[in-house]
Amino acid sequence: MSSNEKRTQRGRCSDVRLSGFVDRVPVDEALSWIDAHAVKLPSESVRIQEAAGRVLATQIHATHDLPLVDCVRTDGYAVRSADTVGAGDYNPLSLIISELQSSLPSGAAASVVAGEPLLPGADAVLPFEAARAEGAILEVFGPVADGYGIERQGQQLRSGASLIEAGIVLRPQDLGLLASLRIKFADVVRRPRVRLVVAGPKLCAATEAPGDANGPMLEAMVTRDGATIEAMIAGANQRDAIAQAVSTPGADVVLVAGCTGTGVDDLAPLAIADAGDLAIHGLALRPGGSAGMGLVGGTPVILLPGDPLACWCAYELLAGRLIRKMAGLNPDLPFVARQLKVGRKIVSAIGLVDLCRVRLVNDTIEPIGSPESGGLASVVEADGFVIVSAPLEGYAPGDCVTVYGLHK
Amino acid sequence: MSSNEKRTQRGRCSDVRLSGFVDRVPVDEALSWIDAHAVKLPSESVRIQEAAGRVLATQIHATHDLPLVDCVRTDGYAVRSADTVGAGDYNPLSLIISELQSSLPSGAAASVVAGEPLLPGADAVLPFEAARAEGAILEVFGPVADGYGIERQGQQLRSGASLIEAGIVLRPQDLGLLASLRIKFADVVRRPRVRLVVAGPKLCAATEAPGDANGPMLEAMVTRDGATIEAMIAGANQRDAIAQAVSTPGADVVLVAGCTGTGVDDLAPLAIADAGDLAIHGLALRPGGSAGMGLVGGTPVILLPGDPLACWCAYELLAGRLIRKMAGLNPDLPFVARQLKVGRKIVSAIGLVDLCRVRLVNDTIEPIGSPESGGLASVVEADGFVIVSAPLEGYAPGDCVTVYGLHK
Repeated sequence: MSSNEKRTQRGRCSDVRLSGFVDRVPVDEALSWIDAHAVKLPSESVRIQEAAGRVLATQIHATHDLPLVDCVRTDGYAVRSADTVGAGDYNPLSLIISELQSSLPSGAAASVVAGEPLLPGADAVLPFEAARAEGAILEVFGPVADGYGIERQGQQLRSGASLIEAGIVLRPQDLGLLASLRIKFADVVRRPRVRLVVAGPKLCAATEAPGDANGPMLEAMVTRDGATIEAMIAGANQRDAIAQAVSTPGADVVLVAGCTGTGVDDLAPLAIADAGDLAIHGLALRPGGSAGMGLVGGTPVILLPGDPLACWCAYELLAGRLIRKMAGLNPDLPFVARQLKVGRKIVSAIGLVDLCRVRLVNDTIEPIGSPESGGLASVVEADGFVIVSAPLEGYAPGDCVTVYGLHK
Repeated sequence: MSSNEKRTQRGRCSDVRLSGFVDRVPVDEALSWIDAHAVKLPSESVRIQEAAGRVLATQIHATHDLPLVDCVRTDGYAVRSADTVGAGDYNPLSLIISELQSSLPSGAAASVVAGEPLLPGADAVLPFEAARAEGAILEVFGPVADGYGIERQGQQLRSGASLIEAGIVLRPQDLGLLASLRIKFADVVRRPRVRLVVAGPKLCAATEAPGDANGPMLEAMVTRDGATIEAMIAGANQRDAIAQAVSTPGADVVLVAGCTGTGVDDLAPLAIADAGDLAIHGLALRPGGSAGMGLVGGTPVILLPGDPLACWCAYELLAGRLIRKMAGLNPDLPFVARQLKVGRKIVSAIGLVDLCRVRLVNDTIEPIGSPESGGLASVVEADGFVIVSAPLEGYAPGDCVTVYGLHK
């Protein structure tokens, strides 16, 4: 038996309760599993009014020219530009103001407003500021060039032009342009339906236990990542209840928070193995090392630790990537990355990917929180975080590192 | 009469139809009007589950210590650390596994799980990996330090500590921390209720007119800026209909899109003057020069041009700032600003603030679209925009300018 086979049997699928994780799976391997199981969802058609923030599934081309015909661009008087040649402040020329008709005769001007089709015969629009009406006579104080104040057919957009690429997150201006073209629906990637199973409280939990942080936090993260909550199931703490909660069809992804560790009540991994296939349990990650993943009825299930800090970390590094990929979004961490200098030593454990919360002090970073302390206070306080890869034991002052911003 | 008084009477309040804007108000003056009338809204209490993305109105302090008592941090065996001194791989020490009781006797160990209160008498937790149970005997393979695997009362957070500052846009981790503290509600700034009045189509509009871009676009921008749509009123194109649409109580801000120009049907400014006070109409801004603003029954009303490009521009530069300020958000443009070099000359009109759409070419910017062409195609195509201030006639190649990114 190769050492790799051994690890598959020991580190990933065995009952770790009361014995601990013998062998932890590298984070890269977990990310590969996620990428292999993150299938972009099919598209659905939604009304333009509901498409803001959705991911366009199919490239859109212009269905016709914009404008559709030559149009007036400026409020003013439609004229023949040749009739204005020689006009000046001291030599105003007079045109006859005509009621709108089928075409503009020579020597005439007609009051027009922006957006209307250009009157045949006219080739320019004189803004109101450049002329003065006196009864039926228009005094013109300057010449106007052919085409001035006019927008030619197709000047904004040509029929057939590529308009919006697939994969774009639709912005207000995209919706406006589609509406201008009278396009009423857009093909967008369906939102992943995520089921949240909040396992626990552990059977032995004390009454002084903190409130459930993971439900509201995960709901907000899942929504941020373009998905919807298919169901929120709380209080599943028995093996069969968890197995049933993950097996019911209807979700694209199931997140189980809690009951992933090495205590006697940590039944979530066993429940996944009962219901389907537990592929990975126990990662070389801190916080978040008791995370896991598997498939139940073909649906990816991610196990997230019950401690809120570890849960946050495992969601951001693992589950969020899965959901964003399925949603057609950029799978990278949804935080702005900056290169910053380390101001105070960052200590990490060799062999583990460490997610260190940091604060900004005079444009350098300092670690906050401790690997020995859980809870979200350090994440809330942090200006960002640094990911220290497994082979490193940390960073020294002066090192330049990538910091992901947790903007407040 | 001073020239300033003259302008007040002419440029801001007069009927510009069929005559044009005689005097345009500087953009800075319009922004000052907006800042003077943007009053942050009062707070409301919402459930934590609904607070993601909301602006915290009142600073939150920790209501109690986290953890509330000394707790187990690691699944394992609670022990007295002194009992493990001298243990090693070749010299395991034996402890008696005791059922949980009121306190841990000397020479004993008790199986515990993370999160539960620490058993009196115990001062450390040995992870399962560091020991082996043989019946009622626990073999210990190494010493454990006082405090290992334990989280002391208040170690995450002290009662009374400042937790989250007012003004923060609540993130998933903030909600999680509040939930940990069993805080169920948060005081957040009420969302501005924005009424959209889509004026027009103009009475004379041709059947070939493009579809209404402004309704769906503004809805998406208003929502992006933290507000809700109080009502969407379409098709108001008579003076009294617009006046009535802006006068009905119930909105914090009214946006009127369309009918702001110099054509005979451009009745929106007159309708505002009928219903309340038209403070400004006609700006030294391109696109968007026919924008305006005023108060009706104390409620700010912003006039946005009907051309979608000009509407987009006037919303982003003027209306969006008003709404973000009322919502308690950062009032600055909601786009990432970068300094970039100009690759191809950007031409602007002296005396007007010009919003020039640009594309990125080899890390330099080039202008796209034309001041003579309306519609949203150039905004959709653009990678960003540059604001050229009124005294400048543009930028030359090599100039370094601030570019606001329109990320796709």
